[in-house]
Amino acid sequence: MDGAILSIGDELVLGQTADTNAAWLSAALAERGILVTERRTVPDDRARIAAAFEELAHGRVVVVATGGLGPTADDLTRDALGDVTAPGAPLVTDEDAVAALRRWFRGRTMPAGNLAQAQRPAPMRALVNPVGTAPGLAGAVGACAIFALPGPPAEMERMFLDHVAPALPRDGGAAIVAESVHLYGIGESHAAERLGSIMDRGGEVRVGTTVSGGIVTARVLARGAAEAARRQAAAVAEEVERRWQPWCFGRGNATLAGAAGAMLEARGATLVTAESCTGGWLGRAIVDVPGASRWYRGGWIVYANELKERLLGVDAALIARHGAVSEPVAREMAAGALERGGGDLALAITGVAGPGPEGTKPAGLVYVALARRGGSASSAECRRFGFRGDRGAVRDRAAKSALQMLRLHLLGAGSAEPMIGETIAAAAQGGESARGGR
Amino acid sequence: MDGAILSIGDELVLGQTADTNAAWLSAALAERGILVTERRTVPDDRARIAAAFEELAHGRVVVVATGGLGPTADDLTRDALGDVTAPGAPLVTDEDAVAALRRWFRGRTMPAGNLAQAQRPAPMRALVNPVGTAPGLAGAVGACAIFALPGPPAEMERMFLDHVAPALPRDGGAAIVAESVHLYGIGESHAAERLGSIMDRGGEVRVGTTVSGGIVTARVLARGAAEAARRQAAAVAEEVERRWQPWCFGRGNATLAGAAGAMLEARGATLVTAESCTGGWLGRAIVDVPGASRWYRGGWIVYANELKERLLGVDAALIARHGAVSEPVAREMAAGALERGGGDLALAITGVAGPGPEGTKPAGLVYVALARRGGSASSAECRRFGFRGDRGAVRDRAAKSALQMLRLHLLGAGSAEPMIGETIAAAAQGGESARGGR
Repeated sequence: MDGAILSIGDELVLGQTADTNAAWLSAALAERGILVTERRTVPDDRARIAAAFEELAHGRVVVVATGGLGPTADDLTRDALGDVTAPGAPLVTDEDAVAALRRWFRGRTMPAGNLAQAQRPAPMRALVNPVGTAPGLAGAVGACAIFALPGPPAEMERMFLDHVAPALPRDGGAAIVAESVHLYGIGESHAAERLGSIMDRGGEVRVGTTVSGGIVTARVLARGAAEAARRQAAAVAEEVERRWQPWCFGRGNATLAGAAGAMLEARGATLVTAESCTGGWLGRAIVDVPGASRWYRGGWIVYANELKERLLGVDAALIARHGAVSEPVAREMAAGALERGGGDLALAITGVAGPGPEGTKPAGLVYVALARRGGSASSAECRRFGFRGDRGAVRDRAAKSALQMLRLHLLGAGSAEPMIGETIAAAAQGGESARGGR
Repeated sequence: MDGAILSIGDELVLGQTADTNAAWLSAALAERGILVTERRTVPDDRARIAAAFEELAHGRVVVVATGGLGPTADDLTRDALGDVTAPGAPLVTDEDAVAALRRWFRGRTMPAGNLAQAQRPAPMRALVNPVGTAPGLAGAVGACAIFALPGPPAEMERMFLDHVAPALPRDGGAAIVAESVHLYGIGESHAAERLGSIMDRGGEVRVGTTVSGGIVTARVLARGAAEAARRQAAAVAEEVERRWQPWCFGRGNATLAGAAGAMLEARGATLVTAESCTGGWLGRAIVDVPGASRWYRGGWIVYANELKERLLGVDAALIARHGAVSEPVAREMAAGALERGGGDLALAITGVAGPGPEGTKPAGLVYVALARRGGSASSAECRRFGFRGDRGAVRDRAAKSALQMLRLHLLGAGSAEPMIGETIAAAAQGGESARGGR
């Protein structure tokens, strides 16, 4: 039960448009038990489109194509499918498609070009498009079902659900069930080591890991009868979660902010934030979570040092002595935010986002402090990080590390092991010996 | 001078991850005169990866692959390339790559899995990865150059620039020159109408428009001798900029925040922000701009109403009477931020991000106010918007509208025409008759 996806368009191979259809179709086919074993993108070139259909159809049950069905001269999917399904024969006019086009343009003049959209190869059927002018096409190459859908995502998705999904071959209720489990705080190799034999290939359930933005994800894939596959995938995902504690923050669409927020909400606690180098990145990640107002009060973006002093009461002498990017300043920012914002917990971030260093402080140096109600500034938990990467990467990891610190604190696992990127000051020299994994 | 791109990973064919690398690489190759005539995506399957390299190499000058170079058992690009370039032979250990890995982990224990990353097919070279653990691979299949790069975008992009770009074949100075010009504030159809005959296909320079996140981009494409193509593309891009005033904010990597920031910096002015529903989105977009500290002081995230009062001095009675999402509150937030933050200009945003309404206020209703030093709260410029889309889209458009308001103010074009999504209250009833285009 293998399938393939074919995306057609100059704008795609030139990199001017991101292909979001392919990911949507991949997931939609997997849900219905069809594993996409190839995706291909070709330009508006009749011969290349035809060759792609023929090659992809080989050994597969379905090929779903998008694009190239518009009314202009560079829309060549109809012609290419003619070359494949009825070589040498002209396209025929589909009268139902003409009628549908006339209904679409009711009253208005239909541009002549649009009539070309009602053409189809003789052996294929036209598929009604209820939300646009381009009809789709359905047919077969050998034993493989072929569907061609228009490129605009709203039209493609609607027509997939209307025409493709009901016609897909079903393998006796077989399904591909995919689960994903996420962690932040250790590197991919360490995460994989913890999974051990779970990752061995060849079992009934396949587990792979990927890393994106520092988040390691285990992708669990079970194939088989729908119910059994679901059970197997869930059992393996649970085992992954267990082995990845305390760094694992959830499955599927879970986020660090959502996971930490749910824990805050459960205990009726609220959070405030104070950000320097991240400039609102942390606040934005928090407010991304619907209902964040139940546990997030707000915060400060104290980018200028004068605002750190004026708005959060950070001691100017402290900044002069240690620099704005320092442990004492991070602690005072957190304490000041807690005092002025009135929450139960406060996260503060100060660091050098880069690209260059700030004085003696290298790009990527970041301090994150976590203060709690009833504690003093000096009792705030503070971690030092040395992140690599560009301005965006440093700020992203700073915000994620802050949220993971909060989550670990709420779990009572605050001092487990060094977090990724964490650097521990060598006590005597104040040097930076990296201890955290990356 | 045809090329191909191969993306490798189960997460891609399953639709769990969007493939942003392929679009980046397509554009990067086009810039260097190589037209990508196929993009292909295959799962973590050794035989399929090997077959894809062989097929894509046929008749092309270069294949660039991403993914499958990680340290875990499902990373099979090295093995597959061995099957293609040295069938039957084992992989060899690249001592330089081992040394680079040891440097990467300096002091820390290197997980055993990472050593696998230093393996390569005997006929290929390992490529140094300065920003991650996975070395790349370079070699050839027949006359076609083959490059395999790691999947994380930051690593892929850096390694493409370091290793692939300098080694690409050049066709006597021929180039495909792409320019892009961006605007925010009017819809794609209006933007295209302003371009008129510039968009006719068949000329030597092709111009198309796309829209993403509300930003309309004109993509200008010229092919030919490098110098002539560059000149032609630049002349057309300039004409697009001219026709798109005052909404056009730049070309290429330009951002709204960067454009507004450059204008602030030129006149030595500084900005403060006060955000409610955007929760730091605006601040983050501003701090994304390197050197933003020269014109951005900082701001507040006043998510809870109590913080709007306590930190910005918004009158509690005003919130009670008009609601937190209202024009008077937006104006007071801006005025309060200016007074307490000490900048020359202040932007304030309050709105309903959704997904649901807040009381009588529908999701998507957003007020943006702009206050300037020396003005009163009531003199602040304020615009009302009704954005469609989910929580993320509403907040994104709110932040972009705020930055465009600032830019238009600095241009002296503040009241040109309604911005996209802008709704003008019918004077008498206080109803919401949409006037802005969408």
